[in-house]
Amino acid sequence: MNLALLFEEDFTRPDRVRLTGRRLAHLQSVIKVGVGDCIPVGRVNGRIGTGEILTLTDSEAELAVAFDQAPPPVLPLTLIIAMPRPKMFRRVLQTCATLGAKDIWLINSYKVEKSFWQTPWLSDDNLRENLTLGLEQARDTIMPEVRIRKLFKPFVEDELPALLSGKRALVAHPGTNTPCPTHLNQPAALCIGPEGGFTPYEVGKLEEAGCEAVHLGPRILRVETAVPVLISRLFDACR
Amino acid sequence: MNLALLFEEDFTRPDRVRLTGRRLAHLQSVIKVGVGDCIPVGRVNGRIGTGEILTLTDSEAELAVAFDQAPPPVLPLTLIIAMPRPKMFRRVLQTCATLGAKDIWLINSYKVEKSFWQTPWLSDDNLRENLTLGLEQARDTIMPEVRIRKLFKPFVEDELPALLSGKRALVAHPGTNTPCPTHLNQPAALCIGPEGGFTPYEVGKLEEAGCEAVHLGPRILRVETAVPVLISRLFDACR
Repeated sequence: MNLALLFEEDFTRPDRVRLTGRRLAHLQSVIKVGVGDCIPVGRVNGRIGTGEILTLTDSEAELAVAFDQAPPPVLPLTLIIAMPRPKMFRRVLQTCATLGAKDIWLINSYKVEKSFWQTPWLSDDNLRENLTLGLEQARDTIMPEVRIRKLFKPFVEDELPALLSGKRALVAHPGTNTPCPTHLNQPAALCIGPEGGFTPYEVGKLEEAGCEAVHLGPRILRVETAVPVLISRLFDACR
Repeated sequence: MNLALLFEEDFTRPDRVRLTGRRLAHLQSVIKVGVGDCIPVGRVNGRIGTGEILTLTDSEAELAVAFDQAPPPVLPLTLIIAMPRPKMFRRVLQTCATLGAKDIWLINSYKVEKSFWQTPWLSDDNLRENLTLGLEQARDTIMPEVRIRKLFKPFVEDELPALLSGKRALVAHPGTNTPCPTHLNQPAALCIGPEGGFTPYEVGKLEEAGCEAVHLGPRILRVETAVPVLISRLFDACR
């Protein structure tokens, strides 16, 4: 937690927040703050700044907060990911949030096992919690939107073409001859398949919708590795 | 397992191997092979090719193997990482192996907790197992070397300068003004700190040894995310 992300319900006055639960435990046992210490804070979907610990008990911390800086820039990226295996999903979600992706679509694919969609990590609360952890890591405040599409064909035929409008659209596909581009200077949409990849039919449908199939070299990457490798390749993280 | 990595002890003849344990279980329960099926194989530190399943029982599989291709290119990178938290360490190690890093140094740092060095994941067998998993993911065969240095100062003063010779040497340090370079056309050495970063003293010592401090932008990344982001930025993964 490189920043405590603050939600509306945390505010008791415009410049006061009360923290409990996970964030309180982290302040006490990891950061080991005391009264008078200052920590980085951010208002969800707003600015970042500083919080001074006013009171600290076993059940809550009260902080005086002030916000004076913009959060890091948003990635101009629409990320379309075949639903990952649940044990990998939380980390993928946190990594997407840490890297600044704000527009995330979880889609079905032939090699997505039906059971993946049953994971409790897809509940609204769990999505928000894991996105929050990823934002706090990056000192970001802008909450990503996650959309779930459990039917591949209607999504790709009816929604995807409009989503790709004005963007450089790519599908990561180890079987193709075109290397993934670098350093885009325009918004992008990126489709990442499941373990084992999209099927040829699915790649064909994504191409029909406007995606270009690109590869990342001879190495096959797990989704959780492919996401940072692709984002780092497409955009300049140092902005 | 996108490739079964074969060790000397697996060979019963120059063109025959016997698989048991994890690789057998994966063949049966994930890839679901039968007699006559072919799977990608690779000889450790050698070439990749194909293995045909000759016999398959609950306790072993026998394969006829032939090797006809070079493994993916090696990254010209020396990776020097402050020992990560054990729960993260296995994934970091697998990711390094998947991405093609072959020269990995695990070093101490002020913010590395002493207990991290006690993890059983540092045993020779566990290192080999996790590096193997990373190589099998990437269809690579070249086993990385991992060296452990539990004392920061002797390593940085006595060993590091020679290690950096002929390389572009970098230390990832969020506090600096120089952005991390891209697309190096020379060998590199890259130092990555622990959670919370190297201390100013440590960054100073790394700079004295020949490293340039560079940042990756306003976002603070976990080690497991920083490794793929940095490698993707420094080298062209599509070669």
